[in-house]
Amino acid sequence: MIETDMPDAFSQPGSARTDIYQELASLRLTDPHTHINPHAPASTTLADLLGYHYYTELAHSAGMPKAQIEGGSIAPKELVERLVGRLSPLENTVQYSWLIEICQMFFGFEDDRLHAGNWERLYDHSESVMSSAQWPDMVLDQSNVEAVFLTNDFDDDLAGFDSDRYIPCLRTDDLVFHLADKNVRERLAACTGIELDGSLQSLRASLRALFEHFVSRGARACAISLPPSFTPTSVPDGRAQTALDAVLRGGLTSDESHRDALSRRVFWTLAELCDEFQLPFDLMIGVNRKVYPAGVFQGQDLFDSRVSLIQYRDLFNTFPDVTFPVSVLASVTNQELVSYAWIFPNVIPNGHWWYSNTPSTISHDLAARLEAVPQTKMIGYYSDAYKLEFVWPKFNMYRKVLAGVLADQFVGDRGWSIQRAVDLGRTVLQSNTDAIFPKRT
Amino acid sequence: MIETDMPDAFSQPGSARTDIYQELASLRLTDPHTHINPHAPASTTLADLLGYHYYTELAHSAGMPKAQIEGGSIAPKELVERLVGRLSPLENTVQYSWLIEICQMFFGFEDDRLHAGNWERLYDHSESVMSSAQWPDMVLDQSNVEAVFLTNDFDDDLAGFDSDRYIPCLRTDDLVFHLADKNVRERLAACTGIELDGSLQSLRASLRALFEHFVSRGARACAISLPPSFTPTSVPDGRAQTALDAVLRGGLTSDESHRDALSRRVFWTLAELCDEFQLPFDLMIGVNRKVYPAGVFQGQDLFDSRVSLIQYRDLFNTFPDVTFPVSVLASVTNQELVSYAWIFPNVIPNGHWWYSNTPSTISHDLAARLEAVPQTKMIGYYSDAYKLEFVWPKFNMYRKVLAGVLADQFVGDRGWSIQRAVDLGRTVLQSNTDAIFPKRT
Amino acid sequence: MIETDMPDAFSQPGSARTDIYQELASLRLTDPHTHINPHAPASTTLADLLGYHYYTELAHSAGMPKAQIEGGSIAPKELVERLVGRLSPLENTVQYSWLIEICQMFFGFEDDRLHAGNWERLYDHSESVMSSAQWPDMVLDQSNVEAVFLTNDFDDDLAGFDSDRYIPCLRTDDLVFHLADKNVRERLAACTGIELDGSLQSLRASLRALFEHFVSRGARACAISLPPSFTPTSVPDGRAQTALDAVLRGGLTSDESHRDALSRRVFWTLAELCDEFQLPFDLMIGVNRKVYPAGVFQGQDLFDSRVSLIQYRDLFNTFPDVTFPVSVLASVTNQELVSYAWIFPNVIPNGHWWYSNTPSTISHDLAARLEAVPQTKMIGYYSDAYKLEFVWPKFNMYRKVLAGVLADQFVGDRGWSIQRAVDLGRTVLQSNTDAIFPKRT
Ligand SMILES: [Zn+2]
Ligand SMILES: [Zn+2]
Ligand SMILES: [Zn+2]
Repeated sequence: MIETDMPDAFSQPGSARTDIYQELASLRLTDPHTHINPHAPASTTLADLLGYHYYTELAHSAGMPKAQIEGGSIAPKELVERLVGRLSPLENTVQYSWLIEICQMFFGFEDDRLHAGNWERLYDHSESVMSSAQWPDMVLDQSNVEAVFLTNDFDDDLAGFDSDRYIPCLRTDDLVFHLADKNVRERLAACTGIELDGSLQSLRASLRALFEHFVSRGARACAISLPPSFTPTSVPDGRAQTALDAVLRGGLTSDESHRDALSRRVFWTLAELCDEFQLPFDLMIGVNRKVYPAGVFQGQDLFDSRVSLIQYRDLFNTFPDVTFPVSVLASVTNQELVSYAWIFPNVIPNGHWWYSNTPSTISHDLAARLEAVPQTKMIGYYSDAYKLEFVWPKFNMYRKVLAGVLADQFVGDRGWSIQRAVDLGRTVLQSNTDAIFPKRT
Repeated sequence: MIETDMPDAFSQPGSARTDIYQELASLRLTDPHTHINPHAPASTTLADLLGYHYYTELAHSAGMPKAQIEGGSIAPKELVERLVGRLSPLENTVQYSWLIEICQMFFGFEDDRLHAGNWERLYDHSESVMSSAQWPDMVLDQSNVEAVFLTNDFDDDLAGFDSDRYIPCLRTDDLVFHLADKNVRERLAACTGIELDGSLQSLRASLRALFEHFVSRGARACAISLPPSFTPTSVPDGRAQTALDAVLRGGLTSDESHRDALSRRVFWTLAELCDEFQLPFDLMIGVNRKVYPAGVFQGQDLFDSRVSLIQYRDLFNTFPDVTFPVSVLASVTNQELVSYAWIFPNVIPNGHWWYSNTPSTISHDLAARLEAVPQTKMIGYYSDAYKLEFVWPKFNMYRKVLAGVLADQFVGDRGWSIQRAVDLGRTVLQSNTDAIFPKRT
Repeated sequence: MIETDMPDAFSQPGSARTDIYQELASLRLTDPHTHINPHAPASTTLADLLGYHYYTELAHSAGMPKAQIEGGSIAPKELVERLVGRLSPLENTVQYSWLIEICQMFFGFEDDRLHAGNWERLYDHSESVMSSAQWPDMVLDQSNVEAVFLTNDFDDDLAGFDSDRYIPCLRTDDLVFHLADKNVRERLAACTGIELDGSLQSLRASLRALFEHFVSRGARACAISLPPSFTPTSVPDGRAQTALDAVLRGGLTSDESHRDALSRRVFWTLAELCDEFQLPFDLMIGVNRKVYPAGVFQGQDLFDSRVSLIQYRDLFNTFPDVTFPVSVLASVTNQELVSYAWIFPNVIPNGHWWYSNTPSTISHDLAARLEAVPQTKMIGYYSDAYKLEFVWPKFNMYRKVLAGVLADQFVGDRGWSIQRAVDLGRTVLQSNTDAIFPKRT
């Protein structure tokens, strides 16, 4: 029995997988969806990495009490020590493999597990590495990443960072689903200078102001996550006015039917503005928020896989000139996504989201996309990362899955040349991002 | 890097895949579902091939305006030139591979892509090949195909063709879903000589006349495609009479509840007639029509994968002597299909339909069928072809997937002999078709 | 062409699959869910094996009339002869492979098919083998099985067997779904000595008495199977009282809304008692009973795959200290199960149930679990066997699938050592069972 880990199937010379993988790994990429904070894009300690919700939620799920993770004032090093003591149940998960790859790639870590005997040296060493002012650029460079899309609150001033490298994206969940919250309305008024005066005109004007601001700062997408129950439809002015009146009057206590109608009206207006401003509208479909309210931070959301893109038929038909990059949370929706993208010009399968972002699911979903969606119509992957260090291992996982599907199903089953397979891989991994989210001129 | 395409995994000597594939390829087949026109079964120009909705809808989806595809009077050669200019985004799709295989197989095409520099020579050459009066028979012969099932309108006279080679099949969508349309009722009266006089008797008599006509002309199946919402149930005479009265009076403006009840009544009557005439009833479950009304011809339909065979429990229980070959549009319904076929004697998984007709989906669905449904109870594949040239590449795709599943999961994982695997392949690919859709005597 | 079956991929020396499989096969296991009768745990003739519903339902599905299977008084040997004559359509199924493996493993059978020419000798020989008083222990020993969980009716006296080897488990379907049946209430009163007097207290007291009895006899789980429509919620006392009154008064004719409310109340009370008695609560989610009422015994149930774990959010949140090992009937629910287990500490994926218990489905579902659920939080497999002989071939099928996933996706794709893969396999196959269903002390 061999006791230590070995080279994997993507580093054994002479195989189609290895040849394709290595070509794909040499590509300089733009990551089309992250949650990076451009003012603090990289980590400063291992606590930033281990504090990523994947590790806290998995450790909690494996038995670590929430109080040991989210106490008011746990020092970073203390938190890392605590979490390291709880990692062994997670060693099988792909998320754990990302962590180890980060430590190996960026901090010279040579073990394949993190434990009580080796974490502290790694902590101290990595802290010194990360203390460099150039650290974020070094991470991007080592990761072969050119730029990352952000996820900006609608009232972000978008100032103080290089928007060619950190590309703004207007996130609209608050506008669509939380306008009944006075705080959200105040933020909207504050950033646009437009008070919601009860008229639909003021609502539209304030939303339009956001688009002007974002586009002027180089935004390349508008984005939103949506619950499985959401069915966008056009809400006529009369109904919308009634809903707006009710919500402005009742706020969070206003009737759900009014809040729903206003949500659909705001959503529809955003689609109209995407049309006007030629901004792709990223739809991330299927999340139920706070299903497990006692869970750790960002580890409370789940889904109901009973959702269908038929709910979006009116939207896709009404806005033929808006590009909709669509992410689905459940793999069982992937075939619908493939089929809708197969005939609707404006529907683009986009990455592998959250609970579908694991190798066996990606492999299944990706194979279905590559064999039936025009190659120019899919965004291969985004990292969804909160810190830059995660972009590399997540994309690397995807590259391996992509190389595997191309090697097995295109080179093997169809007799394609390696070069032709690499070209297809480059298209979905790199070229399509610039084509589908074009730079503003 | 090798630059040109290579032999695929099914032509490398000495592998189980190749051995099994080659045996399967030698079988002479009957194709149990097509849309072939027996009066013009094969193509006359490349426009007939490229005009197949797969290419027009994919080219449109990849950005080609509908007006460039469906103008009133585009000459065939002009259409081909236009489409060829739009094919490069589709080169990854399996549908594109069918096209190339047709050109290689039937017209001596030696390239692996179709482009501005080679299409015209192919067009002219193929036109001369297809101009032979024997062309349809040559295609069938080269394709190793004995006969194909048709999809006949209920008022087809079924005359003027060899019904041993082109086997009639009674398609009933219009009867079940469009009897509110005066034109449909007039067609029914015209072909049966029975006027719908408002009585349920006249309705049943006219439907029965269709069965007599079809069976006398050698029909071997009745078929219908059904929306995800459809739940067949027996409609009592009283309710059916009310519905028929309303629909005869109101036509297309009659209330949806009446139209629904009449649909279910007609459907149930068809099942009774299948029972009486011992005709299998092909159910193709799950399509939503005209989801994308601005799409190209035949490129407008999609689906809602939230459908269950539990909707068909009354039907399967009420008609134990009717064989129901069932196709499902969504792969997520395949496990239900496997399970229902596992216990219901009259439920037969049938082929891989439309949006599920791609290699990775077939592979997934087929493996599940082969390991849990009795081997005598599944129809492996049908081409759904509109022109004879498509039968071969589509069946060939299926044969490769089948050979792959047999080689990996039966020879590899279970230790079966090659011969035993080939026997299973032959059963699902060839023998079952004659057993499940027996010739009328 | 090789005509006889060959060594499979798990017995060819030098491969990762073989190395891992052989290590896993050496583990002595506890089977965490069976339907073994501890008073007659093993078979006495081949009729006990062939009478297992898998063979009767598949033979019936392939055309064997029910009357030939379930006549009043078919002698065992006669039944076997009849069924053997109907097995050839099933030779492709994995269930058939279990049967052949049993015959090879336990009775020295050397063929790979059972037919008219060899069944009788096997029948007679196996009958003599099984006549040994030590036969059950011999089967367990040859199968490398230490103990099996039972499925006990709530009024089982749990006496007369070794409860370390045959571990009691309280099955509660009757209590939750059939309390409207007078017979069930009488059984409950008889075994607890507590009459349902119309008060909620008496209901709770009688249920609590069952837990005391079962726990005192070493029960290690409470279990139930649930229809897709079931959504457990807390039912307030007032509503529960109304429901109980109605059901006690109306029995099987009482209104469905009352029966539903009482079901939910009883279920919730069982969860409270699991909490109090620290008993894991096995949920087997998704079965519709008697969908095919004309089917053979135990071959009548199916499912509607449109079910979501979101229906269980209140339950999982309300009982954080109850462990819920969850089985889902449909593979399309597996991703939800993985995701819920990923964040809820008390949700444990449990085995591969019934219609999902076939190699390709297990492979798909298992891969998704192994890459995203903490390794300590999943029960790999249970046999669901009715007779001890089935434990071995079913677990063996699982071991091969597990070895395949570990070899391909951990050793191959991730570069793990064989040893590390074996350790993960051991955890899910063996160690977790004792940890998640701890022995009562
Ligand atoms: Zn995100
Ligand atoms: Zn068709
Ligand atoms: Zn069971």
